[in-house]
Formats: sequence, C-alpha cells, structure tokens
Amino acid sequence: MALIVQKFGGSSVADAERVRNVARIVTDTYKAGNDVVVVVSAQGDTTDDLIEKAQEINPRAPKRELDQLLAAGEQISISLLAMAIEALGYPVISLLGWQAGFNTNSVYGAARIKSIKPNRLQAELARHNIVVVAGFQGINRYDDLTTLGRGGSDTSAVAIAATLHADKCQIFTDVEGVYTADPRKVDGARKLKEITYDEMLELATLGAQVLNNRSVEMAKKYSVEIEVLSSLNPVPGTIVKEVAKLEKMLIRGVTKDTDVALISILNVQDTPGVAFKVFSKLSGKHINVDIILQSFGRSGTKDIVFSVSKENGPLAIELLKGLPALAGAKVLCDTDVAKVSIVGAGMETHPGTASKMFEALYERDINIKMISTSEIKISVIIDAKDADRAVSAVHAAFAPKD
Amino acid sequence: MALIVQKFGGSSVADAERVRNVARIVTDTYKAGNDVVVVVSAQGDTTDDLIEKAQEINPRAPKRELDQLLAAGEQISISLLAMAIEALGYPVISLLGWQAGFNTNSVYGAARIKSIKPNRLQAELARHNIVVVAGFQGINRYDDLTTLGRGGSDTSAVAIAATLHADKCQIFTDVEGVYTADPRKVDGARKLKEITYDEMLELATLGAQVLNNRSVEMAKKYSVEIEVLSSLNPVPGTIVKEVAKLEKMLIRGVTKDTDVALISILNVQDTPGVAFKVFSKLSGKHINVDIILQSFGRSGTKDIVFSVSKENGPLAIELLKGLPALAGAKVLCDTDVAKVSIVGAGMETHPGTASKMFEALYERDINIKMISTSEIKISVIIDAKDADRAVSAVHAAFAPKD
Repeated sequence: MALIVQKFGGSSVADAERVRNVARIVTDTYKAGNDVVVVVSAQGDTTDDLIEKAQEINPRAPKRELDQLLAAGEQISISLLAMAIEALGYPVISLLGWQAGFNTNSVYGAARIKSIKPNRLQAELARHNIVVVAGFQGINRYDDLTTLGRGGSDTSAVAIAATLHADKCQIFTDVEGVYTADPRKVDGARKLKEITYDEMLELATLGAQVLNNRSVEMAKKYSVEIEVLSSLNPVPGTIVKEVAKLEKMLIRGVTKDTDVALISILNVQDTPGVAFKVFSKLSGKHINVDIILQSFGRSGTKDIVFSVSKENGPLAIELLKGLPALAGAKVLCDTDVAKVSIVGAGMETHPGTASKMFEALYERDINIKMISTSEIKISVIIDAKDADRAVSAVHAAFAPKD
Repeated sequence: MALIVQKFGGSSVADAERVRNVARIVTDTYKAGNDVVVVVSAQGDTTDDLIEKAQEINPRAPKRELDQLLAAGEQISISLLAMAIEALGYPVISLLGWQAGFNTNSVYGAARIKSIKPNRLQAELARHNIVVVAGFQGINRYDDLTTLGRGGSDTSAVAIAATLHADKCQIFTDVEGVYTADPRKVDGARKLKEITYDEMLELATLGAQVLNNRSVEMAKKYSVEIEVLSSLNPVPGTIVKEVAKLEKMLIRGVTKDTDVALISILNVQDTPGVAFKVFSKLSGKHINVDIILQSFGRSGTKDIVFSVSKENGPLAIELLKGLPALAGAKVLCDTDVAKVSIVGAGMETHPGTASKMFEALYERDINIKMISTSEIKISVIIDAKDADRAVSAVHAAFAPKD
C-alpha cells in the first residue's frame, strides 16, 4: 500500500462530466489499495470569472480581498469532487487550504507555503477517507486567506507529498507528459520518459506550461518524484526526478515564451550603483527580472537592457521613470518579443550547442536581440512574429536523426 | 456614535451595480460617525446555482460537502462588497463566518449558532474598519464549515448585534417594511410603523417572507431592536421591538403560506402512545409539525391530521408508513392546501375576532379544513386555489374603516 498525491488542474474538473472522470481516476487508485490525497484547482474559467467580477467593481481591488474572493473557486471544486467520489460509494472528505493545515506568509496573490500542519490530513487518512484538498490556497498568521498565485495548486500537491512522505505525486494535465517541444506546433516533438528537476525547472520557467516552477523547486528540495500525465488518456506520462548525469549532451526540449517585455534604458550616466538602484527598485515591487544586458553607450554613458513579464512592463517603466539616478536616460519598453530556449543537462560541456542553435536561426533569417546562457539552457530574445518558426528550426536542428 | 449592524440579502447584492448601491448605504452610515458591521448573503441566485451543480453530480450529496460548497457563495459576495467599499475610499475588511467567530453545532444545512467569539470583530472595529461578514455560515467543533439554512443571514446579523450590543440591527430587503398583507396582491395593505417580536414571529412563521423566524426569536431573547427597510428606497421601515401591550385589539397582518402539506393518518388503533410515536419519529428527523388535529374515527380508531412543510411531506409519509404502531392505518398527503392567518396582539381577549374571520371566508364560499388559534394568531387551512381570495377577504374585514 502506497500513499499517492494526485493533482488535477482546472480544465480536468471544468464540468460535471469531467469531475466524474476525475472521481473515477481517484477511486481506481484507492481501490487498488492506496491512500489517496487529491489536490484540485478551481473549475475551468472560475478564477478568471471571479477576477472579472472584481475588476468590474474595483480595478485596484485590495489583494487581501482578491484572495478571499479567489479562494472560493477551489472551495466549489473540492466539494463537488467529494460529492462525485461519494456517489461512486467511497469514503471521502474535502478540506480547504486552512483545514488541510496550509500556513503561508502574507504576500497576498503570491504567498509562499511556510508549513503544513499534517494533523487533519493524517487523521482523515487514518479514517480511510480519500482526502480532497483545495490547491492554491492557505492562511497567514492573521487567519486571513491567501493564494499562492497561478499554478499554485502544483505547489500545494508537492508540498503535501513532501510533508506526508508520499510515494508519488501525480500531476494530471491535458497533455500526456513533457515534450521536447509543443506537439501541436512542432513536427517530431517527442514525449520524454523522464527528466531531471533542473531540466524541468528550466522548461517550466521558460514557458512550457506543464508544471509550475515553484512546485519543481520544492520537489527537488524534498526529493518528491513527480509524474506528469493526462487526465483524459491513461498512458504513462513523464517522470520528473533526480537521474544520473548523462555523458552525452541531450536536448530535453525547445520552448517558446511570449510573456516577455524588453525594457531598454539608454544613455544612463555611467556612475557606480546605477544598476543596483534600478534592480533593487524593481525587486522591491516583486518584479522578477530575467535576462540582463549592459553595454557601453556613447561617451560616458551606458545602456541597460533586461526582460520582465509582459504584465510587469508598465509598472517597471513607471518605477524607472521616477528614479533620480536615471535622469536624462531614455526608458523604452518593447512587448513585441518572445524568448526561445533550448534546455538540456550537460550543455556547458558542449560548446557547439550554442552555435548550432544560432546557426539554425540564422538560416531562417531570424534576428537575435539578446542571448542568455546557463549550465542547462540557452535562451534568445527575438521578434514575437518569428517565435514559432524559430522553435521549429531549433527543434529540427537538435532532433535525433532516426 | 453608535454601532449599527446592517444586513443585505442576496437580491440586494445581485450584480455590480447593486453591490455599489449597498456600498453607498454602508459608507453613508459610517460617514455619519457610526461603527458599522455589514452582513451579506450570497449574490442573487448563487446558492440555487451551486445546489444545481451539486444535484447534477450527486442528488444525495453529503450535507457536510453541501455546506462546504454553499459557503463559497457568501465568500464571493463579502469580498466583492469589501472591494466596492474600498473603491469609495473607506477602510474595510471582509470576514468569513469562522473568521468572524461564528461557532455552530454540527447539523449541516440547518446549524444553530452556539457562540460568537467577538475578538476579531472587535479588533477590526477598533481599527476603524467597516467589517463585512459572511452571513449564513460558521464552523463546528471539528473546524468544518456549516450553514444555518435558508434565511440564516438574518440570524447571523441579529447574533452579531446581540454579541456586540449594537444599537440597532437594520435588515435591508426589497420591500419597504412589514405590511398588513402582501401589498402586491391586497388592496389597502398598509406598512406597519412598529410591531412586537411575538407578532413578527407569527408573521414570519406564517409565510410573510420578510424576516427569518429564528432571527426574530433571537432578537426577542437578547432585546435587539430590528428595523426592516428597503435597500432601494430610502424611507423609514418597520421597527420590530417590545412595545407596551395595546388595549385595543389590533390586527397586524394577514398572511398566506402555500408551503404546507396536510398529512392525514386515518383509522389509527386508539391505543396510548400512538401520537407520541408519530411525532417523536418526525422530530427525530427534524421535521417540524405545525397544526395538529386529532379526532375519533370509526369504532375504536382515531384520525390524526397535521401539517408540515411541503418539502418534508414525502419524508414524513415514508417515516410513518414504516411505523408498526400505524399498522392498518391509512396515511395520506395533500399538498394542494394553503394556510391563511391573522396576527395581532390582544387577540385572546377579543373572542369576536375568530368568528369575524370565519364569516369573511364563509361569505366568499371558502371551505375551512383545519383551524388553529394561539394568543396572537388565528390560522386556517384551506384549498390552495382559494388562498389569494381568502387573504383579500380577511384583510378587508379587518381593515380600519377610514
């Protein structure tokens, strides 16, 4: 008998028929002799609908109230799933984030899990209940509801798996696993049998929207083995775990991320501390900065270019325009860009990889605006219009010749 | 400076425009120098929509899960109202039932409030926040969500007013107050300026759907002064409070209740304890029995007739059919009936009141099936089809001649 944590996203529980489908998957697992904890997100578009309601009433709604509002989404989905499981004749109980013991910090809208008090979860498992837990939510030390941000249900599932020392954490999605590229867009994209945490982390960060990156970080930290698989098609998915490092350089995937805004600060006075002032200002407002490029401009000035998510573009511009250190500099924002990346362990020992990627883009006449490399990835910023062509070209260049 | 509790029902917060309207009423009260606690129900048809979702998945959904589901309704309305109040520039915080300290027993779907821990409410008022509280919900000692049943938000509001010793409890509805009869149906129906708890209790019980009866009971017990008024039309409403008993007999209102099922048990063996067995069986399933009539039937048998709510009719029949003491008896259920009542303090000292009512019905050729009288009301059960005519006739008979 094993303890298995299963997580189902919003599209997997979008309507009554799909809720029943999830109930069947869960009860099949329970019937096979396992303890089961199920984590679910809000149904389908519920979260977006709630945000729309809030926008209509107050476009700058307090984040605490927004979290109070959004947490209702999973409350609905967990109770409905519990009802569906009960209808199949199995013992079940649904738990809200706070009932399941999720304690978080107080960053409303993007809270971090501080701890999970496992008492209630353990007690319900001891009663042989299937336990359905609301993902994405918890409470802070003031007893106020918090949410973990988009994709937070993945993190909830991994956190429970880590806390209860679960044997497996299965993340059900609408794809069959992790692919070398988007299978709907790239011919020859293949499903990976397994992948390391670090590789998955790069893929997640880079926009392969399969797993939330915080959940992968947490899985790595606590050695939780994750399986990504389909809730509609019962075939083996992709296992995310620590695997022995491969001698041979292996490209795990090619990804595209269009949620990128490129911010350019031109003609900055070349005095010490300017970069510090720029990036501390941004991090103070929780704006994550990705690729940074600094270059010398004309006489005694320099240019700083970096990327942020599209959503944060306008706020970043606003913050920078008010910065005294940037007086006289020009601040521009380009949202018409995309980031295309290749991910694979062992990349640093294969210097030919980058040039092979650049060559593939050059052959398609695709202009590279920025480049960033790490141990296991190479990213380029290009025009948004070239993104899909770029992914295909790069994928073809690295695809196994078989 | 006073402490005022204001309660708004689902139709008062049905959409963004109405939520903004409620925010204006609340902030006007706060602006005038009062502390304000606002209790709201779920928006418009939210509760019915959620019940429908549950029905589709599991027609016999566990009541605990149903409460978990339904409690999401007020979670949405309180956060939206808080956002609307914040948009007007006032300090505000929303609290779920459990955050506001509502402890209840464990009768899911019809829980009773056991206590309110006032710490959080008091702390938020001390911070000069307008406090928006989810009506209708609380938690039991297992930390599971419970709901108080239909109309429970009225009870939540009165309970807060009692706990915090509020100066006033205003119940906003879509009518302007308590009327002598339904003003949409009966010519000459008048709005009452004030009414006693007992009279209001009878009116509430009898189907004048203005105030939930448990809320009136609680208001009476803790001497909470209630004002019933319109959220759309700012005119004085009806005050519910203990008033000096009037010498003159005064009919407060004529009501109609079509949520009645008449259960007849015919040819019951006339042995001791039969009635006890019947009614203890029903109360064991929380079925409230209203008017009871017992009469002698043919040789050595008797008939028992009583009324329950329509919803409870089928369950009552089912329970009684399995009762050994009723072997050989015939159990019938008639749902095509209505109860028409007159309510007014001092009725017992005016014996002519009943005959005046019966005369008004006789003149319209309306047949009376059952009669019940108390200190402050007289009710008759008649055919459902006669109900509206009966209300008009009785109201006309008692209307002041001016």
